[in-house]
Amino acid sequence: MGFLDELRNTVAGVSTSPADLAAAARDRSGASPDGLPLAVVRAAAVDGVQDTLRLANEHGVPVVPRGAGTGLAGGALAGRGTVVLDLSLLNRIVEIDPDDELAVVEPGVITAALDRAAQEYGLRYAPDPASAEISTIGGNIASNAGGMRCVKYGVTREAVLGLDVVLADGRLINTGRRTVKGVSGLDLTALFVGSEGTLGVVVGAALRLRPLPERTLTAAAAYDDVEAAARACSELARARREPSLLELLDGATLGVIDRAQGSDFAARGQALVIAQADGPAAEEEIAAIADVLGKQATWSERGVDPESSERLLFARRRALPSIERFGRALIEDICVPRSRLADAFRGVERIARAHDVDIYTFAHAGDGNLHPIVAYDAGSPEPPAAVRRAGDDLFALALELGGTVTGEHGIGLLKRDWLAREVGPDVLGVHGAVKAALDPRGILNPGKGF
Amino acid sequence: MGFLDELRNTVAGVSTSPADLAAAARDRSGASPDGLPLAVVRAAAVDGVQDTLRLANEHGVPVVPRGAGTGLAGGALAGRGTVVLDLSLLNRIVEIDPDDELAVVEPGVITAALDRAAQEYGLRYAPDPASAEISTIGGNIASNAGGMRCVKYGVTREAVLGLDVVLADGRLINTGRRTVKGVSGLDLTALFVGSEGTLGVVVGAALRLRPLPERTLTAAAAYDDVEAAARACSELARARREPSLLELLDGATLGVIDRAQGSDFAARGQALVIAQADGPAAEEEIAAIADVLGKQATWSERGVDPESSERLLFARRRALPSIERFGRALIEDICVPRSRLADAFRGVERIARAHDVDIYTFAHAGDGNLHPIVAYDAGSPEPPAAVRRAGDDLFALALELGGTVTGEHGIGLLKRDWLAREVGPDVLGVHGAVKAALDPRGILNPGKGF
Ligand SMILES: Cc1cc2nc3c(=O)[nH]c(=O)nc-3n(C[C@H](O)[C@H](O)[C@H](O)COP(=O)(O)OP(=O)(O)OC[C@H]3O[C@@H](n4cnc5c(N)ncnc54)[C@H](O)[C@@H]3O)c2cc1C
Ligand SMILES: Cc1cc2nc3c(=O)[nH]c(=O)nc-3n(C[C@H](O)[C@H](O)[C@H](O)COP(=O)(O)OP(=O)(O)OC[C@H]3O[C@@H](n4cnc5c(N)ncnc54)[C@H](O)[C@@H]3O)c2cc1C
Repeated sequence: MGFLDELRNTVAGVSTSPADLAAAARDRSGASPDGLPLAVVRAAAVDGVQDTLRLANEHGVPVVPRGAGTGLAGGALAGRGTVVLDLSLLNRIVEIDPDDELAVVEPGVITAALDRAAQEYGLRYAPDPASAEISTIGGNIASNAGGMRCVKYGVTREAVLGLDVVLADGRLINTGRRTVKGVSGLDLTALFVGSEGTLGVVVGAALRLRPLPERTLTAAAAYDDVEAAARACSELARARREPSLLELLDGATLGVIDRAQGSDFAARGQALVIAQADGPAAEEEIAAIADVLGKQATWSERGVDPESSERLLFARRRALPSIERFGRALIEDICVPRSRLADAFRGVERIARAHDVDIYTFAHAGDGNLHPIVAYDAGSPEPPAAVRRAGDDLFALALELGGTVTGEHGIGLLKRDWLAREVGPDVLGVHGAVKAALDPRGILNPGKGF
Repeated sequence: MGFLDELRNTVAGVSTSPADLAAAARDRSGASPDGLPLAVVRAAAVDGVQDTLRLANEHGVPVVPRGAGTGLAGGALAGRGTVVLDLSLLNRIVEIDPDDELAVVEPGVITAALDRAAQEYGLRYAPDPASAEISTIGGNIASNAGGMRCVKYGVTREAVLGLDVVLADGRLINTGRRTVKGVSGLDLTALFVGSEGTLGVVVGAALRLRPLPERTLTAAAAYDDVEAAARACSELARARREPSLLELLDGATLGVIDRAQGSDFAARGQALVIAQADGPAAEEEIAAIADVLGKQATWSERGVDPESSERLLFARRRALPSIERFGRALIEDICVPRSRLADAFRGVERIARAHDVDIYTFAHAGDGNLHPIVAYDAGSPEPPAAVRRAGDDLFALALELGGTVTGEHGIGLLKRDWLAREVGPDVLGVHGAVKAALDPRGILNPGKGF
């Protein structure tokens, strides 16, 4: 019996309808796969995941795990001859334990849904990718997603206590624990976090929840240029202030937001910094933060309640949608040592000029994580050559400044060459050895990640 | 040429003097190796580490990496036929970058020395094992050390940004990065953290420093019994309070402290809880914490300044030395879900009675991490059978309560059977596969860890 027949006989939820295949072949990277996958399995239970992997492993068929397909690096891109293993139906919140401040979830749970469920207990799920309303926890774990709160609360890795993982041969293992501490054996949990579906398929997770802060306050300040804004962020660090959110938007971004939303941010300055403080000292902290930020500012304001705070964050939340209103966008993601933030912004401007492309940049400034968004024409199905070359220069810039080619979106398919340049052949060799140890036949998301 | 001659010809700092061998054969676990090592290499440069591993790999000679030898799990125990690779001379603080809030260090740096160096910049190295004055950063990394501040600041893993690691065959790789975020490739940094010298030798580390809190305030409360104390800690969690330190000492421990130090803690109650709050809201937070802790207390007090705060912590700091004043001690380390703290203390008391041994228990209560100290006679060179049996029952208790057999000290040599019971054969298989991928000839600390 052929692989597909065996799969259909063994596992529920197999589809080969052209519409399903086409939908499952792509993610949000804008890149195109080299053809259509063989089949999509929408797993409704863990044993379906196990059977799919066991059969694929026996037959040497590549499997592409898939959450919501919102990834920006091509990690869930599924080409010819692959099977897509869609985890989105495994979407139960199994347990919320308010005493141990943890949740046990299936991988298809939408990130924001978990956060909302936790809020009923005075808790929250801290990692907050901007895609929280549309991405899955499993996808977040596989790509070690970051977000605006991570400057204070850490990225997804810091929120994962333990995992249920199906290995390439179909065996189910449990890593980590329900305790906050533990050093029994290698940290396999951290190894699977961020492995982009190349080492195993996450089918369950024990996640740490954090107390919902009593209050969150916001301050914003505008500056003459992006360098003054970056300097203000550095001053904040030097004053040993630890905001719970610290975002920076450049002038181009403010302009496009104004154009799309009818706002007037650009009138206040050519760069905007937004900061938050939360917890019991929020008031004292935001005052101190606003003090530092205000020094060289052309405009500044403080949110005195949740509504005015949310209004100040509005610019940041509408940045990407505003850019996408006028065309398509290559969403980039580089990270530099925080002290090199001004250099990074200056470098991005230089790259935009050199390739004659529009780049809108906003940053998780507290982490040194920039998102330069390279715009291109809505009519163009793929990014034009100048846009791709600008992208390459952005990665070179990140490495020059002692940073990394991806702060939170991952390597996926699109940044593999750049990963090689960042880490070098010996580290790639170690990646390869670990991969071969866990997935000897190489069926798990081959060609992705590393 | 034999291995030893080649080693001596190639690497500086090789000793085979019986005194050096005997000193390098043991750690602080109290266990005895099965003989003396072949040689000790006190590496004075990274290339010495590389040459030692390359030669050992060629000759199939087991290598035991060693920091300060303060480990409690037998991880640095070096038996017959091994070479001890002592990293303690590689002890330079290479760089402290106050803007990026990071330090670059060699592995032999003493933990507390780094913390003090950071303080000059208004920063600190947060992980604070009780052994901070005598242990090395390299040993801390290899065992993912914890400490009292970890309840707020995370364990060693959370402080490690990147590592220089010499692989089994002598190649030097660099993992991670100097940025706080980054997802380029597998998280090899986390894989090496806590790997107890079995995957590679740490020869350098980029470490995250944290702002030194403006103030740290302390509260303490005593209770009728340890269950009331544990309940108070649970209440604190339920009130969503997040102390920066939360320790619990049982009545037996208070008694022995009083006996050794001439204090009168036991007069205040049969269990003591000590909490701290730090940062800009320290005052407000410690007041709220003291409120919760005070409810069922027989006695309570607040530290109003650094001196009185340190006085309240005195009991905790003198606990182990007080116990060791009267004999030897098997220092245990189990971790349970925080909500099971009272059950864990009750279980420890049952085990002490069942084996007719004295067990003194204190805990990092906020993490559910208990240190039951099983006392035995100073004349006994190894723990007597009843003490060992009590130890086994402690591990069984941890697993029964959904916890782990080691919260921060590691598996080393002594807990290998218990690791197998905790994680099961499939996870052990994955450990083994990863080990084989990185160290195919099995020369790195064989028989330790997993
Ligand atoms: C508008 C927008 C905003 C975004 N903002 C952010 C942001 O702020 N921060 C950020 O980090 N990312 C962001 N992203 C990128 C993306 O949303 C995240 O990477 C997210 O974590 C992907 O989740 P997903 O469920 O869509 O995963 P997918 O895209 O389906 O998959 C992502 C990767 O994970 C693997 N995978 C998925 N599920 C599993 C599983 N259960 N087991 C094993 N492997 C699996 C896939 O094979 C693939 O390699 C954004 C994307 C968009 C479109
Ligand atoms: C009084 C006392 C209190 C303690 N309190 C704590 C505590 O609060 N929290 C805690 O976590 N631990 C504690 N410990 C245990 C111990 O101090 C820690 O495990 C510490 O991290 C060990 O550091 P070390 O330099 O002594 O390492 P060693 O004991 O020399 O080695 C420990 C392990 O790490 C490996 N290793 C050492 N250096 C390297 C390197 N550079 N590269 C690769 N592998 C290496 C060794 O092979 C061994 O497996 C305590 C010990 C004592 C004696």
